[in-house]
Amino acid sequence: MNKQAEAEKRNHRKLGQQLELFMSMEEAPGMPFFLPKGMVLRNKLEELWKEKHAQAGYDEIKTPIMMKQQLWEQSGHWDHYHENMYFSEVDDQRYAIKPMSCPGAVLIYNSKLRSYRDLPLRYAELGLVHRHELSGSLNGLLRVRSFTQDDAHLFVREDQIEQEIEQVLQLIDDFYSLFGFSYEVELSTRPEDYMGEPAIWDQAEASLENVLKRQGVAYKVNAGDGAFYGPKIDFHILDSLDRSWQCGTVQLDFQMPEKFDCSYVDQENSRKQPIMIHRAIYGSIERFMAILIEHYAGDFPFWLAPVQASILPISDAHKDYATSVCEELQKAGYRVSVDNRAEKIGLKIREGSQHKVPYLLIVGDNEMQNQTVAVRKRPEGNLGEMSLAEVRKQFEL
Amino acid sequence: MNKQAEAEKRNHRKLGQQLELFMSMEEAPGMPFFLPKGMVLRNKLEELWKEKHAQAGYDEIKTPIMMKQQLWEQSGHWDHYHENMYFSEVDDQRYAIKPMSCPGAVLIYNSKLRSYRDLPLRYAELGLVHRHELSGSLNGLLRVRSFTQDDAHLFVREDQIEQEIEQVLQLIDDFYSLFGFSYEVELSTRPEDYMGEPAIWDQAEASLENVLKRQGVAYKVNAGDGAFYGPKIDFHILDSLDRSWQCGTVQLDFQMPEKFDCSYVDQENSRKQPIMIHRAIYGSIERFMAILIEHYAGDFPFWLAPVQASILPISDAHKDYATSVCEELQKAGYRVSVDNRAEKIGLKIREGSQHKVPYLLIVGDNEMQNQTVAVRKRPEGNLGEMSLAEVRKQFEL
Repeated sequence: MNKQAEAEKRNHRKLGQQLELFMSMEEAPGMPFFLPKGMVLRNKLEELWKEKHAQAGYDEIKTPIMMKQQLWEQSGHWDHYHENMYFSEVDDQRYAIKPMSCPGAVLIYNSKLRSYRDLPLRYAELGLVHRHELSGSLNGLLRVRSFTQDDAHLFVREDQIEQEIEQVLQLIDDFYSLFGFSYEVELSTRPEDYMGEPAIWDQAEASLENVLKRQGVAYKVNAGDGAFYGPKIDFHILDSLDRSWQCGTVQLDFQMPEKFDCSYVDQENSRKQPIMIHRAIYGSIERFMAILIEHYAGDFPFWLAPVQASILPISDAHKDYATSVCEELQKAGYRVSVDNRAEKIGLKIREGSQHKVPYLLIVGDNEMQNQTVAVRKRPEGNLGEMSLAEVRKQFEL
Repeated sequence: MNKQAEAEKRNHRKLGQQLELFMSMEEAPGMPFFLPKGMVLRNKLEELWKEKHAQAGYDEIKTPIMMKQQLWEQSGHWDHYHENMYFSEVDDQRYAIKPMSCPGAVLIYNSKLRSYRDLPLRYAELGLVHRHELSGSLNGLLRVRSFTQDDAHLFVREDQIEQEIEQVLQLIDDFYSLFGFSYEVELSTRPEDYMGEPAIWDQAEASLENVLKRQGVAYKVNAGDGAFYGPKIDFHILDSLDRSWQCGTVQLDFQMPEKFDCSYVDQENSRKQPIMIHRAIYGSIERFMAILIEHYAGDFPFWLAPVQASILPISDAHKDYATSVCEELQKAGYRVSVDNRAEKIGLKIREGSQHKVPYLLIVGDNEMQNQTVAVRKRPEGNLGEMSLAEVRKQFEL
């Protein structure tokens, strides 16, 4: 099959519908609805993210999704980004629905006197943001108007910049390896519409480049493609069809701490300004899900699969046994369900296969008598009769 | 101490600041910012919720936080609730920021042909909603403009109503017991501003009353206090000061399925209308957190405590040992940190105590030599020297 046909077969909108993961509606174009199976996938990605970030010394926060427009004028978003933002009104005051979570993190940083000993502070936020996209460009979960950034804002001392960027690079590498992604790295430099002093931009770009060189990471320079507040390193995932998707990013920001007058008290008891690092790994949960769907062609690895096994009773006489098998496996922590419709077993197998359920466990007279199940595994096919203990061993492989 | 003074001591705004759980800002009044320790608490409540709802046969969904105004006109929210709603605009169309998650759940229900065999369908959603409150009435996490409802919408057949309500009552009882809450039950009936037919209201009120009577639940009738779309049972938690807080709710709704023309195919292959049950247990995560803070006076049970143990090195010489103790306990899954400031041990103990950390583990020369820690537990006080194995046993008590 050629690459285009293969890509079409993997189209995440088509698979999203077939596997019942998400849907798009006229009532809110570009703002996806997550169906139960899509939520399992999403929850898995979020759990993994929370766990790994806690281990890496991040503190999770949550900030409001709308704040007064004034704040966005102060942050520079109004000047540089308002065409992509949505607005509302509360008590006759203009509010902006957040397109990014940074100003919220800054307010938390500024809520307390910080000491040089407190830094680095690493605030992680799964932030729901809204950004306008033209209706013609909307595309399933890939290009949306509302999404959840797996954001973090690090407040660091100047002497901590490079070590923190190194740690972020390591974390990104850990995550992408979990899904078998290789990736390409791009350094994006000062854009035309930039904020701040050119000298500080040069310094920031040099810091990022130093780390890449020291770590021996191959990268290309993307001149003029930085954010308006600072240069960045972007990570482009390569999926199983060798297509490239921009996901992770690490951005250095000397501007926002200046705009919001952030500070900490240094060893000599004088006020210093921290540097801010913005970074994301998935980029957006929604977009990363789209990429995973296409990468795996819907055949998720066992740990990610929304339904890990489906139990198919051959007739109504086997329903009770099927239910007891289901309950036992659920108790062991697996995501399992029973297909107890009054349909022929052939159809149930076909549909289980269309839904790309990793294991189909068929139960009839024999299996009921032997207290076993007949196991079909994707893509291997028939594995024969197994006891539940054997099934659980299979699951752990 | 009298009740008012005791309540003042437990004030969740004061404790929220002292324990660094959340903050309120002028940039978004009524829309709380969650600080890292508050997020630990919040995540625990959400994890528990997801786990228990998966076990109880609920399917989690997530719907957009803004949708076209037209949808809210169809749902009846525009007529009955628009004064409390916020609005925005996308591509010159009016959008409403959701004050409730029900219409989203209905759109998911209606996205597929449903059979009588599919019901009951139980859609659970941790839905971020926004509702206007007067600025003078805002109060920490208790009265806010943005909050997360632990919502669920059940689509049931008429013959399933009472059994589903019974199951909800059971689930609510399970949750409240976990926190040691007793509670009172109120049945709220048809309000003046109601939607639909009086006869259907009577029938719905009778269903709720039947379940309460059959389960032998004591309740009082709150005439005229139902939602505009149906009668409800409200659950009022009694906290440790015997104060009453409305949290859980179960609401029967014959109107919304009518407005959105919901249906399923019955055994005779004809179209029937399902009944909708709206229900919440915490009510709102934010409000429930406020109640927990006051209920426990910030002394959270070990499993909920944002920091479960703090390790206090007596001097800089003990910092490395403190870090190794911390890492070992973190690896075992506990939320532990080191207070490695250059402060006197007396001050560290005082502050650990002010932060209401359940265990303070002090390490000095002796402990370093013996590979132990000196344990102080709230409220018992000094428990003496313990090995880390003994500490872990303590934690599991």
